Amino acid sequence: MSGDLVNLANQLLKQQTFSVLLDAEVVHAEIGKIAIALPQRQDFLQNHGFIHGGVLSYLADNAMTFAGGSIFGPDVLTVEYKINYLRPATESRLVATAEVIQSGKNLAICQCKITSSEGSDDVLLAIAQGTIMKTQ
Amino acid sequence: MSGDLVNLANQLLKQQTFSVLLDAEVVHAEIGKIAIALPQRQDFLQNHGFIHGGVLSYLADNAMTFAGGSIFGPDVLTVEYKINYLRPATESRLVATAEVIQSGKNLAICQCKITSSEGSDDVLLAIAQGTIMKTQ
Amino acid sequence: MSGDLVNLANQLLKQQTFSVLLDAEVVHAEIGKIAIALPQRQDFLQNHGFIHGGVLSYLADNAMTFAGGSIFGPDVLTVEYKINYLRPATESRLVATAEVIQSGKNLAICQCKITSSEGSDDVLLAIAQGTIMKTQ
Amino acid sequence: MSGDLVNLANQLLKQQTFSVLLDAEVVHAEIGKIAIALPQRQDFLQNHGFIHGGVLSYLADNAMTFAGGSIFGPDVLTVEYKINYLRPATESRLVATAEVIQSGKNLAICQCKITSSEGSDDVLLAIAQGTIMKTQ
Repeated sequence: MSGDLVNLANQLLKQQTFSVLLDAEVVHAEIGKIAIALPQRQDFLQNHGFIHGGVLSYLADNAMTFAGGSIFGPDVLTVEYKINYLRPATESRLVATAEVIQSGKNLAICQCKITSSEGSDDVLLAIAQGTIMKTQ
Repeated sequence: MSGDLVNLANQLLKQQTFSVLLDAEVVHAEIGKIAIALPQRQDFLQNHGFIHGGVLSYLADNAMTFAGGSIFGPDVLTVEYKINYLRPATESRLVATAEVIQSGKNLAICQCKITSSEGSDDVLLAIAQGTIMKTQ
Repeated sequence: MSGDLVNLANQLLKQQTFSVLLDAEVVHAEIGKIAIALPQRQDFLQNHGFIHGGVLSYLADNAMTFAGGSIFGPDVLTVEYKINYLRPATESRLVATAEVIQSGKNLAICQCKITSSEGSDDVLLAIAQGTIMKTQ
Repeated sequence: MSGDLVNLANQLLKQQTFSVLLDAEVVHAEIGKIAIALPQRQDFLQNHGFIHGGVLSYLADNAMTFAGGSIFGPDVLTVEYKINYLRPATESRLVATAEVIQSGKNLAICQCKITSSEGSDDVLLAIAQGTIMKTQ
């Protein structure tokens, strides 16, 4: 069941040319909670050799949109969000996990955590909070 | 002079592998104000055919970081930012213009506007506000 | 005309018991742009003797809500906002000026500046950005 | 020990004239986690009879500042924060609980939840995320 949702979400993700460019993959999906991963890549960096904030932002935005979509269906868009970067991260696989904290008729308020896998431990890289809207 | 700053900023941008992946280019640079552009590309879209929010987020993040760097030098990082998406945008060239609203010893507070060029008019797509920190 | 809008907005403000507690006053009103002022008071401070962030937050929240209401009518609420404090402020009269940057069917995206009057100059204390929703 | 921290935090809170005006009270204090409460009052409302967003904002701002202060000491200030309102709340006692998610040399990144006590259940009213800075 959860596997079906993962497949469904990945089909949607494959329709996003930007997500295909970045090799994103939905790795967890349940109603109200979605996780999206990015592989380790050398072209995700900024000038100090750390993962670019834009990569983390993409992940936060997309994971929260999909979390909203797990409740409202695919016709959703991100109204806004805010992200705090907690520490620089060197090249590694990334996972953004977004949860719907509260949803009403048209809006879902979400929070998101982004972690990297360094050795055996997950390291928290960024936290985000945002608003998803049902468009139809 | 401003041209020199543009060159300098573009050299820095070229050291960001993620910015190279996205074909970003600094198109304006003065102390406290930077504009970064992205070309029209088919692999910048989400599943409804609009430009992906992650693309706009990348631009806002990077333009504000460079605006902070125009004051503090290259050793800066983005502490946090917030973005509101104003309307969906179809494929087009994008420009993010970020300005430092206030800077102190270590922090610069910035605002950013992202526009697309559709026909002869600029269309405002997103606004952002964030905090850049000097790290050294 | 603008004076009528100011009166109308102040009547609404007087129905907010919290705004009455703080002596807030609408000082400018046009469609899409509202300014709300607070008088200088000794009970608006934090423990270092500066104006409390909560006072500035109240002003930003309310000015943006009223700016949204100037377009949508009184049945609006604040979905969310973000505020950056730019510098500490000692006791002084405060003015928050909020503008609608973009409005659609149900949502208005606003920005807000808060200034204090110190001597002859206005000093920028905080900037905010947020989302107002029409509820009916 | 935790009681000592509560006392210490309340002594600080009593030095904030705005917190005294609003009858705020620190109700929980440990290193990295602070809760501040406001009593039920009729002068905390907006024009629809719900608790004013400015009241919730004050609580979020102050709880996160105190959470940062529980790590850095009293010389802290709020750099910025963002708040999402989840649902309207009628008159009731309010509690904001803020936690430090990550702290470095000078910055602490915090999240905050605000709940009201309606009957026997806590109702989540707002969530916030922000940045606290050590000033000395």
